[in-house]
Amino acid sequence: METKFDVTGIGNAIVDVLAHADDGLLEAEGLTKGAMSLVEAEEAKRLYGQIGAAIECSGGSAANTIAGLASLGGAGAFIGKVHDDQLGEVFRHDIQALGVVFDSAPTTDGPPTATSMILVTPDAQRTMMTFLGACVNLGPDDVDEDMIAASQITYLEGYLWDRPSAKEAFLKAADAAHRAGRKVSLSLSDPFCVDRHREEFRDLAERHVDILFANEEEILSLYQTDDFDAALGHVRGHCEIAALTRSEKGCVIVSGDEVHSVAAEPIVKLVDTTGAGDAFAAGFLHGVTAGRNLSVCGRIGSICAAEVISHMGARPDVSLKKLVAEKLG
Amino acid sequence: METKFDVTGIGNAIVDVLAHADDGLLEAEGLTKGAMSLVEAEEAKRLYGQIGAAIECSGGSAANTIAGLASLGGAGAFIGKVHDDQLGEVFRHDIQALGVVFDSAPTTDGPPTATSMILVTPDAQRTMMTFLGACVNLGPDDVDEDMIAASQITYLEGYLWDRPSAKEAFLKAADAAHRAGRKVSLSLSDPFCVDRHREEFRDLAERHVDILFANEEEILSLYQTDDFDAALGHVRGHCEIAALTRSEKGCVIVSGDEVHSVAAEPIVKLVDTTGAGDAFAAGFLHGVTAGRNLSVCGRIGSICAAEVISHMGARPDVSLKKLVAEKLG
Repeated sequence: METKFDVTGIGNAIVDVLAHADDGLLEAEGLTKGAMSLVEAEEAKRLYGQIGAAIECSGGSAANTIAGLASLGGAGAFIGKVHDDQLGEVFRHDIQALGVVFDSAPTTDGPPTATSMILVTPDAQRTMMTFLGACVNLGPDDVDEDMIAASQITYLEGYLWDRPSAKEAFLKAADAAHRAGRKVSLSLSDPFCVDRHREEFRDLAERHVDILFANEEEILSLYQTDDFDAALGHVRGHCEIAALTRSEKGCVIVSGDEVHSVAAEPIVKLVDTTGAGDAFAAGFLHGVTAGRNLSVCGRIGSICAAEVISHMGARPDVSLKKLVAEKLG
Repeated sequence: METKFDVTGIGNAIVDVLAHADDGLLEAEGLTKGAMSLVEAEEAKRLYGQIGAAIECSGGSAANTIAGLASLGGAGAFIGKVHDDQLGEVFRHDIQALGVVFDSAPTTDGPPTATSMILVTPDAQRTMMTFLGACVNLGPDDVDEDMIAASQITYLEGYLWDRPSAKEAFLKAADAAHRAGRKVSLSLSDPFCVDRHREEFRDLAERHVDILFANEEEILSLYQTDDFDAALGHVRGHCEIAALTRSEKGCVIVSGDEVHSVAAEPIVKLVDTTGAGDAFAAGFLHGVTAGRNLSVCGRIGSICAAEVISHMGARPDVSLKKLVAEKLG
């Protein structure tokens, strides 16, 4: 069967609220730098009162990846839950404006569209406090099996594992993809997310995931080791492809007997690391769906990540298609 | 009487929706580059469907100026109308986070918080389509005369003149300021706004305004001349101070017999001119309230404008206080 989509992503539909912050604020609020914490509505409101003037951009891990894929010229679809409110409209506009198919119906009662307050410290690290809002209503009924069957790859974010109904949606989608002979890809999302769900994530990696994305911290956490090569050895036997990112050390792509090391793309100015992993996954998956070899896929991922970390916000500020064409020559 | 505020601004409380666009979109939509057009709700919705992925930042001309003043360390207050909705909350948060006093009650019925779609073309010019939303409910009752009397300067945006009740608010504030022995400052906002209200703006400049801000196009339009020196001659007799900005040619400050020409601040990269005039006014007024001489006021204004045009969005991305301290040495 012909595919309609290169990649369909399923994830939390979030609008990011990005502000500069100094380390003092993180300390005062007891926040762990680099992590994503879930906060309830009241706490989100209190924190918002503590942070500086912000800008709002559409975000969400898997949504960022699909947005990046669309910017590369790929055919993408996204499944996620917004509320019928102003920020929900912002999220919908921004992803549809890139040509992504996003049909998930908004909720009309319950909590508002999800927001993530992202504090960017002077070292360009981001620390996130996410209020899941309407995302808690994402469930298996939102997964359109025909859409999944029509997608070369179904891409899932680890964060979905934080909510039981989203987890069900995840498993339904993975199952539908495999039944249709398609690939399933997972991003481990965050080392703390791995901590929360280690056993289940290991099981997923072993039995359900064809293409795994993880950064160094996440893969070390998954296999509870401090030896990157040991972690690499573990993952090698389980997933068809594992793409392991190591920040300025570049990335390592493992597939069966193949191991490719790809250098990080040089960057002029590191501004905000928000979305670096999401953009890498976008570039990598675009390469995979276009049939490029794995080291080129890694290179495309690195180019996309370098673009996104050179400015505030998790989504590309330029056409990634044009950028990658220039860089690859 | 001692003053509590350096500057109180009155203007449209707007959240900007900024997107990159090419000239083709402006042509297709019949938009005049560099201008601000008012659009109704339906048209705003239609246009939103045409523009690319966007970012949201608090905006509004006078609000940007007061935000800039606060970033410089000045004591600012703002009067403007938002609705009790998500974008109204964004506007309120961002201006209060800078330390600005913003007490205006939100509307609870009627249209939503105002938005301005701002298309930034590759030449860094901005073209704005503003849906005034809740701003149409700004009226004289929103002007707190005690706040005006406690402000060294009351700063008004010309855009207020587009709505009868906002115009009344404007005149009430100007009157209250003068009765308290304070100064009134006006920004002409936009050459098309000057076109719409030329006779009244001339009358204002002659009889009500102590400190006038205009760019070259606006002052030429006000006096219907194509000779900058002729326009300068006209304005000299009327306002105590006129600060006339000329983009890369810098600015000219006129006050009685004094004329100061100040070079534009060099910029590394011109990204988005949105808010350049607002930031200039912030720096200039901060200088005035601090008792600096007029050429230094112009220099501070130029430094602030250069910061704002080096990134997307109309509000400063760094502490202007620190930046100006470094630049002035």
